[in-house]
Amino acid sequence: MTLKLVIIGGGSSYTPEIIEGIIKRHESFPVTDIVLVDIKEGEEKLQIIGNLALRMIEKSAKPINLSWTLDRKVALKNADFVSTQIRVGRLDARAKDERIPLSHGFIGQETNGAGGVFKAFRTIPVLMELAQDVHTICPDAWIINFTNPAGIVTEALLKHSPHKKIIGVCNIPYNMRHSVAEILRVSPEDVRIEFVGMNHFVFGQKVFVKGIDRIDEVLEKLMESDGLDYSPANIVSLGWSKTFIASTRLLPNPYHQYYFQTKDVLEKDLKAYEEHGTRAEVVQQLEESLFELYKNPELRDKPVELEKRGGAFYSDVACSLMDSIYNNKQDIQTVNTTNNGAISDLPDDSVVEINCVITKDGPKPISIGALPHSVKGVIQQMKAFEELVIRAAITGEYHDAYLAMVMNPLMKDEKRSKVILDELLEAHKHDLPQFKLRGN
Amino acid sequence: MTLKLVIIGGGSSYTPEIIEGIIKRHESFPVTDIVLVDIKEGEEKLQIIGNLALRMIEKSAKPINLSWTLDRKVALKNADFVSTQIRVGRLDARAKDERIPLSHGFIGQETNGAGGVFKAFRTIPVLMELAQDVHTICPDAWIINFTNPAGIVTEALLKHSPHKKIIGVCNIPYNMRHSVAEILRVSPEDVRIEFVGMNHFVFGQKVFVKGIDRIDEVLEKLMESDGLDYSPANIVSLGWSKTFIASTRLLPNPYHQYYFQTKDVLEKDLKAYEEHGTRAEVVQQLEESLFELYKNPELRDKPVELEKRGGAFYSDVACSLMDSIYNNKQDIQTVNTTNNGAISDLPDDSVVEINCVITKDGPKPISIGALPHSVKGVIQQMKAFEELVIRAAITGEYHDAYLAMVMNPLMKDEKRSKVILDELLEAHKHDLPQFKLRGN
Amino acid sequence: MTLKLVIIGGGSSYTPEIIEGIIKRHESFPVTDIVLVDIKEGEEKLQIIGNLALRMIEKSAKPINLSWTLDRKVALKNADFVSTQIRVGRLDARAKDERIPLSHGFIGQETNGAGGVFKAFRTIPVLMELAQDVHTICPDAWIINFTNPAGIVTEALLKHSPHKKIIGVCNIPYNMRHSVAEILRVSPEDVRIEFVGMNHFVFGQKVFVKGIDRIDEVLEKLMESDGLDYSPANIVSLGWSKTFIASTRLLPNPYHQYYFQTKDVLEKDLKAYEEHGTRAEVVQQLEESLFELYKNPELRDKPVELEKRGGAFYSDVACSLMDSIYNNKQDIQTVNTTNNGAISDLPDDSVVEINCVITKDGPKPISIGALPHSVKGVIQQMKAFEELVIRAAITGEYHDAYLAMVMNPLMKDEKRSKVILDELLEAHKHDLPQFKLRGN
Amino acid sequence: MTLKLVIIGGGSSYTPEIIEGIIKRHESFPVTDIVLVDIKEGEEKLQIIGNLALRMIEKSAKPINLSWTLDRKVALKNADFVSTQIRVGRLDARAKDERIPLSHGFIGQETNGAGGVFKAFRTIPVLMELAQDVHTICPDAWIINFTNPAGIVTEALLKHSPHKKIIGVCNIPYNMRHSVAEILRVSPEDVRIEFVGMNHFVFGQKVFVKGIDRIDEVLEKLMESDGLDYSPANIVSLGWSKTFIASTRLLPNPYHQYYFQTKDVLEKDLKAYEEHGTRAEVVQQLEESLFELYKNPELRDKPVELEKRGGAFYSDVACSLMDSIYNNKQDIQTVNTTNNGAISDLPDDSVVEINCVITKDGPKPISIGALPHSVKGVIQQMKAFEELVIRAAITGEYHDAYLAMVMNPLMKDEKRSKVILDELLEAHKHDLPQFKLRGN
Repeated sequence: MTLKLVIIGGGSSYTPEIIEGIIKRHESFPVTDIVLVDIKEGEEKLQIIGNLALRMIEKSAKPINLSWTLDRKVALKNADFVSTQIRVGRLDARAKDERIPLSHGFIGQETNGAGGVFKAFRTIPVLMELAQDVHTICPDAWIINFTNPAGIVTEALLKHSPHKKIIGVCNIPYNMRHSVAEILRVSPEDVRIEFVGMNHFVFGQKVFVKGIDRIDEVLEKLMESDGLDYSPANIVSLGWSKTFIASTRLLPNPYHQYYFQTKDVLEKDLKAYEEHGTRAEVVQQLEESLFELYKNPELRDKPVELEKRGGAFYSDVACSLMDSIYNNKQDIQTVNTTNNGAISDLPDDSVVEINCVITKDGPKPISIGALPHSVKGVIQQMKAFEELVIRAAITGEYHDAYLAMVMNPLMKDEKRSKVILDELLEAHKHDLPQFKLRGN
Repeated sequence: MTLKLVIIGGGSSYTPEIIEGIIKRHESFPVTDIVLVDIKEGEEKLQIIGNLALRMIEKSAKPINLSWTLDRKVALKNADFVSTQIRVGRLDARAKDERIPLSHGFIGQETNGAGGVFKAFRTIPVLMELAQDVHTICPDAWIINFTNPAGIVTEALLKHSPHKKIIGVCNIPYNMRHSVAEILRVSPEDVRIEFVGMNHFVFGQKVFVKGIDRIDEVLEKLMESDGLDYSPANIVSLGWSKTFIASTRLLPNPYHQYYFQTKDVLEKDLKAYEEHGTRAEVVQQLEESLFELYKNPELRDKPVELEKRGGAFYSDVACSLMDSIYNNKQDIQTVNTTNNGAISDLPDDSVVEINCVITKDGPKPISIGALPHSVKGVIQQMKAFEELVIRAAITGEYHDAYLAMVMNPLMKDEKRSKVILDELLEAHKHDLPQFKLRGN
Repeated sequence: MTLKLVIIGGGSSYTPEIIEGIIKRHESFPVTDIVLVDIKEGEEKLQIIGNLALRMIEKSAKPINLSWTLDRKVALKNADFVSTQIRVGRLDARAKDERIPLSHGFIGQETNGAGGVFKAFRTIPVLMELAQDVHTICPDAWIINFTNPAGIVTEALLKHSPHKKIIGVCNIPYNMRHSVAEILRVSPEDVRIEFVGMNHFVFGQKVFVKGIDRIDEVLEKLMESDGLDYSPANIVSLGWSKTFIASTRLLPNPYHQYYFQTKDVLEKDLKAYEEHGTRAEVVQQLEESLFELYKNPELRDKPVELEKRGGAFYSDVACSLMDSIYNNKQDIQTVNTTNNGAISDLPDDSVVEINCVITKDGPKPISIGALPHSVKGVIQQMKAFEELVIRAAITGEYHDAYLAMVMNPLMKDEKRSKVILDELLEAHKHDLPQFKLRGN
Repeated sequence: MTLKLVIIGGGSSYTPEIIEGIIKRHESFPVTDIVLVDIKEGEEKLQIIGNLALRMIEKSAKPINLSWTLDRKVALKNADFVSTQIRVGRLDARAKDERIPLSHGFIGQETNGAGGVFKAFRTIPVLMELAQDVHTICPDAWIINFTNPAGIVTEALLKHSPHKKIIGVCNIPYNMRHSVAEILRVSPEDVRIEFVGMNHFVFGQKVFVKGIDRIDEVLEKLMESDGLDYSPANIVSLGWSKTFIASTRLLPNPYHQYYFQTKDVLEKDLKAYEEHGTRAEVVQQLEESLFELYKNPELRDKPVELEKRGGAFYSDVACSLMDSIYNNKQDIQTVNTTNNGAISDLPDDSVVEINCVITKDGPKPISIGALPHSVKGVIQQMKAFEELVIRAAITGEYHDAYLAMVMNPLMKDEKRSKVILDELLEAHKHDLPQFKLRGN
């Protein structure tokens, strides 16, 4: 019997992490075949990664067949899991997402604000095609989507593609759990945060340690430290005021800084931009040096340098999820899946980031009920905005794109939204085949 | 450190089962103290049970202190768990619940129909007082309610008592899981039925065996056997037609016969009544012989004869639940708890019978989303009826009681509802202190 | 400018009433053209009615062109209003709807119970075709549907046909308003009942007379008279008990007797059946004598005998509705239209019978909010049952038909539902082309 | 029979308008008694207004008794209508609401942003007391609330006061209707805009002229004129871009500029502040010159200069509403009342600004159903923010006040929200008795 994993965007610098995760779990999750898939433009990187992965597997002595290809359809045959970690338009596109909004005085970021909108516009059509292929070629396979904006992309696929076995993952809940464990000096395995909200806009409303809620203690520590840092590498951290924590009684996630510290983040980003260029450009250099490392034929492990990239632990999250599905573990993990009533103030068919029991039949969300009153409004607004993004990504209509842009909580400016929209549509036009119309 | 369990209604014939359950699980769930509580009228039985329990514990050699008392408040001190298995008015009251409706051509049953309404009317005020005591004396204790109608009683307490750590349990989901395991020839541990609905009105909509849904196979077997029997001892079984199973694609529970085979059940019940009197009277004899057995000083085990009583496995369900709470096991059990959006067509504050992750912080329901279209209406009606029962049990208003009676799906007869209501109010008047008004 | 009305089922004995209504309102609602449409089998009656209508118009001296035809598509050209009053399978079918359920001990009635289910099954496909034609030929025309079961049929069309300008009407709210006016000795024009629920299952929850709620007074009078009769000719009347009125604090409608006095109505119906045959057969005789009257070339008015038929005032309701739409009157009328949140416990896309402001853009329901707690369950159940009927009428699947039958609040018997279903499917097979499957 | 109107805040410069409105409608709405009520600090103005009102009535020759008093409780005896137009803290407070936020770079405005939050904090407790008095002294009286923020204040009273006959009014819907009528060159009486949303955040989604929806034509005209002005005197107008109109397909109201043109409005406001001080200070001068005019014993009419104040037509709206209630007119007016399901995406108990049928029993909202997808998020956010404001106004808790401030869509800045909150709490402390706590 085979157990086959296909990695779409296999030439990504993150791949060694996922390979390491597979090797580490091989006893319980005995993958027999891995195929790395990438596009023509990524062929060189794909080979570098492929060869490194081969060396890692060889060192591990696990019986895993690994190969790579540019032919997605062939790769998908008999797949059991398909993970996605693509970047349509590559880092160049990210640089535009960051630079253009900044040039107009708005936050430029790859998963939030105007940049996030465009990352969704570019990504959704490509993953819709993938989902269609999976549905035809390997209909029983689970798609594990790491591609950002992970929540929006997952909702788009679950609503509009024929394939329904799709789960979105993000490392933020993982990082929050680990940070909280550190704060409380307990093992992360013993911590279960009750999350509420959506990807990149999720709050922690309870912190169970062995079943006892210790949120008050965590909030107290956060207030003492005036915003103890628990941000990933790719996000600036400004800390949180005591009053914000004391009033919401919730654990924010690092991305919330974009929404509740907008002016300060913008100022810091502008300064950083002047000093080092966009984050995309910083990452580009990081990537180049990573690939230099990866080429080294002596390297047979994931290099520690990879952890400096923002997505650390992403792959760990994904491997752990696949393991639980495969083994029907019924453990609790935080993933992006259909709400189904679990948060009663959000639509049943929304995708939320929530604790789920992970079964062979997929993730089953644990009910939360009503949203906390303090953040009900901002969460509902964000969800409605996400719906506008998905609608525009599917229809390709100019006015739909404008609505997504102007109703983005970081924009809300009816005139500048148009200017930024038009510049981004022009800048990304080769990656936005669905947008036939321009102007108005 | 102590781990104390208080059993309200400790003189019940079921108590040996719960004692057996505690002994069996002593390694993981190390109860140190058990107090059996009962009322004056049950003192003799309490002593018989108490002595049998002592002998059982002695044989087991577990370090458990067991005692019994009529003083509930003293017993509750430092309790960790309080289980309830009371019968207000005792079997005499049950006989009236069964006989009076039957005498007017309506189903007389202790948890459904007019009888169930009155069992709720008698029980809710008594358990409201208990919950108040628990809240004052041992506020951290969990109440595990087995008392019928378990779902309605649990909803009444969760809505109207100050104590919120209350869980209702029933053996029906347990029995269904075991019957299905038998049908599929697999281990019950490997079966997880996705239940939807409320206590005594719950359906199975999926049957997962190691994470794979095998409901179609189960339904096929049920149809082949023309209604393979999986009823507990206290319910007549008439089987289900192929067409009903093939159209609903759901697993009914035995109580659904009252609602979808009303005429036939009534006919059978009337015949049985003429032959042996009410079920209460049958049970009374059974109870008497059980207590004769229990008195035997050589008896040091739960006698097998107990399984003939309807509630078999009830206590097993309860012990397993307490074990998981105590150990924060995070396993999945089917209990009665607040909906909280899990079934999106029912109110957030309704009590539903649903699969939950069992944590130290209580049960967390796993979301289901919309009700199956085939039974949406009957489930919503039943829930609205339950709300009327709870309202009347709390207000003690005659017109509220009438509404509960006439909107009971087994009554729906505006004139006869009044006749039966008046007779039952009169028959039970000593156990219904809240009903000040009569007549109209 | 023309104002054209097409009457589908123009050969109905009710047509003279609608002609009278048009003549009476000619000043404000100046109809220029009326076309009566019927099917081949109704040609003789169509001619009789056509000629009577011509004589009525001639007497009135209004400038109205009236014609009749069997060609629906030609008739629809340039139509502004299309009224429907058809009976698929004619009175023979009704007789079967009444007789077959009665023969198994269940209520046989043309709009409720098993009979109502089959009337819906026969009618929906025919009116779906009509709505398709209207949508193509005269897309701006309003369909005013009197055809029973009016609420279910209207919901089916609004959900499944491309034409969205459809309103359902019934004479029950009109009759209730007039009866209440009589009870209070005020003018019906001054009475506004706040209705809640659906067609044939609507309750009055407030009775405004010139804006003052006098429901208590009305209920008091109903209780004094022990169920003062306000039933139309086609429904047996058994009165309502004081307790039912005092507990619900609602005005029931005559059809509620089927649901809350089931045994008594059934007994009365069975007796009536033995004495005079089904209601269909009684009506058949009535119809024959009506048509004898209609043939009289001296007759130039609607004969008073017509009021003995059950549907009296139906046409008045319809004419008044068309007048208000045409003139954008913004007055309040009770019609069947999409809920749109007006009753917050029912789906937004359900059809409800509700007070609406009548505008040129159609009826706009006045919000009610939550259902009254006393009848929330039975109304939700009825709505879910109606959804099952519509689903089965559209899919033609046997199992869907069975679900509609078994979940009908007057059936709820899993075995007898199948027997009655099979007999009715066989009896009506020529009028049920969508039901390809039989059996199981 | 008497018909008595009590005007709370009778010393307001707006009072002549309401007096004029009463005189104008005296035939249909025959007010017999008017009492102007104000507080000690407003006594001088009260006398000036009282005398002017007396002269106006004398000129009109209507039989109306007018008096004024500082004793509210005496005034309320036998009142039929109570209108409220108060300004707690007077124009000085408004100046602070405007100046303090502006000084930190945020919009300072009396009904939106941080200023609106504090106007609500000051007003709600005062009107809660009034509602309590009305409930005790004249329980059948309707309170017509013009006091801003009218929607929030009305929701606070309807949720938390014992008196439930409360309606909020605003002149924005009136102005929008008149502007649209001008655009289409039709009579305002023939225009019915379908409004959706809340006070100061309401959109028009359809424009019916004699029942025909002409929204497309109106939007086309707005786009041609690049934002034709239809703003009241107190709001800057920057026009709307074609793209915003073309994408939302909705009529915005002038206050939406604060939310979708924030940067530009802020810039303009800052400039205006530097040039003429706050709007409050401008108004103060306007008021002074108005009162100079009012003192003139020859003046016997509302002076035209009053229309320059922002609230023009407010009183007309209120008089028209009282007339319709009194006469049970059942016409359609746009008021602030309980949602009751009319907008299905907002809570049933929210107050919304919506078209209602006006009856003697109060306003009955006309159902709309789902919110338009383009603005669903921002409307839900605004409503949740309003709930936070009301909660804080009632509890007087510092952390609740902070939540209202930080979740205000114009703030969203966790650190600056605290600074502005603290300054405003200090500045207004004499008018905020409920806020016991400071700091944190």
